[in-house]
Amino acid sequence: MNVNVLRLDHRLKRDTRITTHVCLTARAFGASKIYLAGEEDNKLMDNVRDTSKRFGGNFEIEHTDSYMGVINNWKKEGGKVVHLTMYGSQAHEVAPEIREDGSDILIIVGGSKVPGKVYKAADWNVSVTTQPHSEVSSLAVFQHLLMDGKEFDLEFENPVLEVIPTAHGKNVNIHDENR
Amino acid sequence: MNVNVLRLDHRLKRDTRITTHVCLTARAFGASKIYLAGEEDNKLMDNVRDTSKRFGGNFEIEHTDSYMGVINNWKKEGGKVVHLTMYGSQAHEVAPEIREDGSDILIIVGGSKVPGKVYKAADWNVSVTTQPHSEVSSLAVFQHLLMDGKEFDLEFENPVLEVIPTAHGKNVNIHDENR
Repeated sequence: MNVNVLRLDHRLKRDTRITTHVCLTARAFGASKIYLAGEEDNKLMDNVRDTSKRFGGNFEIEHTDSYMGVINNWKKEGGKVVHLTMYGSQAHEVAPEIREDGSDILIIVGGSKVPGKVYKAADWNVSVTTQPHSEVSSLAVFQHLLMDGKEFDLEFENPVLEVIPTAHGKNVNIHDENR
Repeated sequence: MNVNVLRLDHRLKRDTRITTHVCLTARAFGASKIYLAGEEDNKLMDNVRDTSKRFGGNFEIEHTDSYMGVINNWKKEGGKVVHLTMYGSQAHEVAPEIREDGSDILIIVGGSKVPGKVYKAADWNVSVTTQPHSEVSSLAVFQHLLMDGKEFDLEFENPVLEVIPTAHGKNVNIHDENR
């Protein structure tokens, strides 16, 4: 199952840190690509690419002028669409069905106001707890449920920095050959 | 098990949105209280209190001038401490042990630089994937693992706004009696 993420309505400066966290979360939890809609932010995209390069793998990031184009194209190619919204069906109830469906999944993460056409275009509108919190935490927990916890076993190819889990202190393997 | 969160090193303006998301995530995933260390930010705290009031429950938020005081006091009263850091032990490997321990848990979420004494004071340094992403997503996924998914069944008392999960559209019960 290929997982991509679409982040709606990015605003320069105001959203820089949140959108950066959305991008890195998408990558860490198994997405292969994120589309950013809203204002184009080349510095943010370069920062995410730099981090991805240092920590390995092949995560892609791309700005789009047409989020409906991304959604429609995804569906035309047979993929399905999950929209994360606090009003949707509870994540733990629908995640098994979405996983078993086996289609490639585009996860849409909203900005300030999400138009009704996104709710309509989604195969699943999904809520993580129905409480207000964060698009970052919603994305992480939904991806965790979608991956059934397999994100902990992901391997990112050719990292420069490889963190070795350790109970106390910091343990990082530096792979100069991947610089 | 009572769960509190300690957010280190909050900086006015720069961290407002991320720290707000940390607070709301802590609440939505079952913490009863968050301590904010760093710069005091009354506006942020009022906003979180307003959201908590609207969506129910008894979530508390408090600024502290001494994060080591909070940590030491927690331990003195028999609680245990989890520090979320990308260098720690993998979350899915240690979460069952932490849950079964049954102690009250203080979860520490770092700021820009976390001093060594926090790593030393922690009973568990815990990493969510060993990849860079976000303190917001780390907290959410760790709380999800700690709660064993029970956060989806949490009930927040006396809400004004109660979201009813729905496949399409928005469905919100408004309880005027709780205003």
